[in-house]
Amino acid sequence: MTGKTMRIGVVLAGCGVYDGSEIHEAVCTLLAISRAGAEAVCYAPDIDQAHVVDHRTGQESGETRNVLVESARIARGKIQPLSAFTAEAVDALVIPGGFGAAKNLSDFAFKGADCTVNPEVVAAVALLRAAGKPIGALCIAPTILAALLGQQGVELTIGQDTETAAAVEKLGARHRATAAGEVVIDEALKVVTSPCYMLESTLAEIAEGAENTVKALITLAR
Amino acid sequence: MTGKTMRIGVVLAGCGVYDGSEIHEAVCTLLAISRAGAEAVCYAPDIDQAHVVDHRTGQESGETRNVLVESARIARGKIQPLSAFTAEAVDALVIPGGFGAAKNLSDFAFKGADCTVNPEVVAAVALLRAAGKPIGALCIAPTILAALLGQQGVELTIGQDTETAAAVEKLGARHRATAAGEVVIDEALKVVTSPCYMLESTLAEIAEGAENTVKALITLAR
Repeated sequence: MTGKTMRIGVVLAGCGVYDGSEIHEAVCTLLAISRAGAEAVCYAPDIDQAHVVDHRTGQESGETRNVLVESARIARGKIQPLSAFTAEAVDALVIPGGFGAAKNLSDFAFKGADCTVNPEVVAAVALLRAAGKPIGALCIAPTILAALLGQQGVELTIGQDTETAAAVEKLGARHRATAAGEVVIDEALKVVTSPCYMLESTLAEIAEGAENTVKALITLAR
Repeated sequence: MTGKTMRIGVVLAGCGVYDGSEIHEAVCTLLAISRAGAEAVCYAPDIDQAHVVDHRTGQESGETRNVLVESARIARGKIQPLSAFTAEAVDALVIPGGFGAAKNLSDFAFKGADCTVNPEVVAAVALLRAAGKPIGALCIAPTILAALLGQQGVELTIGQDTETAAAVEKLGARHRATAAGEVVIDEALKVVTSPCYMLESTLAEIAEGAENTVKALITLAR
């Protein structure tokens, strides 16, 4: 890839930690991509959110919002429907965390190890695997990769939460506990994960985890 | 302030560049505060947004959303109504940009130099001035400080846009053109401004502008 700008796909899941993509993780991912001199290519599924949460009270609001439309807030309008994803369009892909990853991109937040994954996310991961391109996930989003690559024994981290770790192991994944900013790299499957807000963290630590994840993805993509 | 954690107030205006706070600028501001070892204290007015914009299409959606509730998405729920603001609660204050600063915190986007500023924002700036504490603003948000401190000849930047520069000068402010990442510091009035997305910028440059602004605020607050 020398001399060519690397393109990193970012799959968003809405806009806000409780019902969408965690905004700090998403922006720190985009920032890490920018700082690496790479180009971010944002995607989100064009579907309704599982629900809308008032982030001040933590209560459901009863509204209906669309994942792609809300994700466009983080992407400043520069975003494509995930249905348009091709492996040729990117050199690597990363999924930031937030409950949206476990409510909109999958239903892990509701069903744990019995979860299913959005078919467009399933297809994107399959296309990347077939093309031998790396995939990253932050915070709770590695549960999606556990669901899709658990049978291949993917090694990943969701931080230190024992209940979530047990669920990803039930899906066949090998879980490694991590501290803030650390990444777990599965060299064979080209999967990079970092705990981010699955741990009580400062925003500076979130930025560090996102940066380490993006750097590892770029190294694997070369 | 030696030995004491510095607290930086952040006034949010919703969640999204076209109808609220610009998310990248807001998160980069929070990140700069975290990296400086300071504490962010988020505020937003408890009012309806001027309107809601679909960030994918750029069109008004006809929905009603509350500035405080949407700002809570960026603050992960840790936010107070701006009506609760006191100068004692912070060592400095910063207002990120995005159209929300010019639609919800003021009506500059609709009325230019004939704008009025939300009374809670007016009060917060007056309290900080009376306490001799510094105020920062990014992107389009310096127009608020032009409206409030123009008669005192505040020096500031909104980047290089001639129409906006003319409007802030009509309000009495002295405008200085800047490039990406630069800050203008009015030492006398303790005001720090940076152009951010008023210029075509990379996210890495936005982070640099936010970091330089926060660093200058901390220096002025000492």
